Amino acid sequence: MALPHAPVDLFADMAAFVRAMQDELCAALERADGAARFGRDAWDRPGGGGGVTRALQGGALLEKAGVNVSEVQGQLDAAFARRLPGDGTSFAAAGLSVVLHPASPYVPTAHMNVRLLRRGSRTWLGGGSDLTPCYLFDEDCVHFHRTLRDAVERHLPGSYPRLKAACDAYFHLRHRGEARGVGGVFFDDLGGDPAVELALAKELARAFLPAWLPIAERRRGLPWGERERTWQEIRRGRYVEFNLVLDRGTAFGLETSGRTESVLMSMPPRARWVYAHAPEPGSPEARLLEVLRSPREWA
Amino acid sequence: MALPHAPVDLFADMAAFVRAMQDELCAALERADGAARFGRDAWDRPGGGGGVTRALQGGALLEKAGVNVSEVQGQLDAAFARRLPGDGTSFAAAGLSVVLHPASPYVPTAHMNVRLLRRGSRTWLGGGSDLTPCYLFDEDCVHFHRTLRDAVERHLPGSYPRLKAACDAYFHLRHRGEARGVGGVFFDDLGGDPAVELALAKELARAFLPAWLPIAERRRGLPWGERERTWQEIRRGRYVEFNLVLDRGTAFGLETSGRTESVLMSMPPRARWVYAHAPEPGSPEARLLEVLRSPREWA
Repeated sequence: MALPHAPVDLFADMAAFVRAMQDELCAALERADGAARFGRDAWDRPGGGGGVTRALQGGALLEKAGVNVSEVQGQLDAAFARRLPGDGTSFAAAGLSVVLHPASPYVPTAHMNVRLLRRGSRTWLGGGSDLTPCYLFDEDCVHFHRTLRDAVERHLPGSYPRLKAACDAYFHLRHRGEARGVGGVFFDDLGGDPAVELALAKELARAFLPAWLPIAERRRGLPWGERERTWQEIRRGRYVEFNLVLDRGTAFGLETSGRTESVLMSMPPRARWVYAHAPEPGSPEARLLEVLRSPREWA
Repeated sequence: MALPHAPVDLFADMAAFVRAMQDELCAALERADGAARFGRDAWDRPGGGGGVTRALQGGALLEKAGVNVSEVQGQLDAAFARRLPGDGTSFAAAGLSVVLHPASPYVPTAHMNVRLLRRGSRTWLGGGSDLTPCYLFDEDCVHFHRTLRDAVERHLPGSYPRLKAACDAYFHLRHRGEARGVGGVFFDDLGGDPAVELALAKELARAFLPAWLPIAERRRGLPWGERERTWQEIRRGRYVEFNLVLDRGTAFGLETSGRTESVLMSMPPRARWVYAHAPEPGSPEARLLEVLRSPREWA
């Protein structure tokens, strides 16, 4: 169990880690993109804390990307507080959130988030990483899952199946009967030693680029046209639905951060809703839907 | 007060009204559009009831429009039921919902919804109509509000100021500090005689086209380009945010209808999110934002 002062140290540790990781990720993503650069907006939260939002738009590889850190503290609305573990209304949170919306419909959207939260005397961690392709390449899904599996198994041996199942359960659009994508790993408040879970969160953050970048490099050169773009925008509509209707992180951010632009950095650059759209049976688009309707084992 | 059997009669009355009004609206909108026609999808709800969704896409005036009726009944999830008036978990709802997403950025998006709900022994009505322009023409806002004012005042004299204020309060994106649009009127469970409120709902539905169509005819011919289209898509992003994060009707529909495509008919055909977008000071886009940040009296 954590020592009396451990939560404070863990918070500082996490805050330093996410700041360093933000710089590292932005530098690597700029190199991969080759055309656009990340901006940098530091912001203060009126009730305490703040963050740094780094956004890239209109790149060669990345149509829109956000790499955000926040370190906020203060008082929660009482009704909102009751939805969280812990006691009282004082809270603190430090986190890193990454969302990549590639230009090419063949390069999958990817997301990673790690966070440490404290409410009253309770400290817990959470995080995850998941992949949202518009077109399915089995070997890409296998690579992504194996990379994440190896990362989490290093710190919590035997944990991958549970974290993979938690990801499938979390990124499920019940109103669509579809998964958001092909999953990954996800954990939230495992209830163990926070120091071990902090190490797990760090490992997950470090595994993100090795999991995604080789896929992006493999697929970025494939030619695509209006059909693939339309499908990409329809799938991005589902991404919007998940984030705005279901995502607890988005709800927490809109409620507590005071900086909507940073929270909604996760929104895709463009999205589309077509009434009753149904892909042609046997098409690659239909194949994606089949897999989203019954999640698979990939690793 | 309503007689013992009145709720049943009111429900049947409402159900017949919305079916007739759906046909009337679709016919008038097809005439105005001149190019596209409404489809017709009848659907059954597994737990009881169903609806008819009429959608038009890719028109000359209307890029996407939905005119939906539903008449559903059954059992509510207990947790969801507690958020509604009445008692128990048995419910019934009959409603009409219209959302028009015009092709031209100069023609405002418009919405109208009327509904009758019953939970246990309690019956109540709600409805509203509101206008969401991307560019502000004061005379259009005045016309829209005056038409609605005259409609509601015929049935509930003196009610317009309250219903106008309720609309401003309801269609407020608190995470943006913006109104969704320039408002209109809105009511939900006024607590009076349901028969009077049914008449009010009918009047509101009948006032919708007289409120919107003259505006559409005035603005549809104005030329527009990439700048106006981009702004329209950004504003439609806000429409998505409102509907998915805040709208109770959308939440109710996703929870109870069993037909997501009909509920999310309200989504715009295309939307865009640009990180930290800010219109040029003094531009027409900036003027819209100023008004959305401090709602006005228009009638």
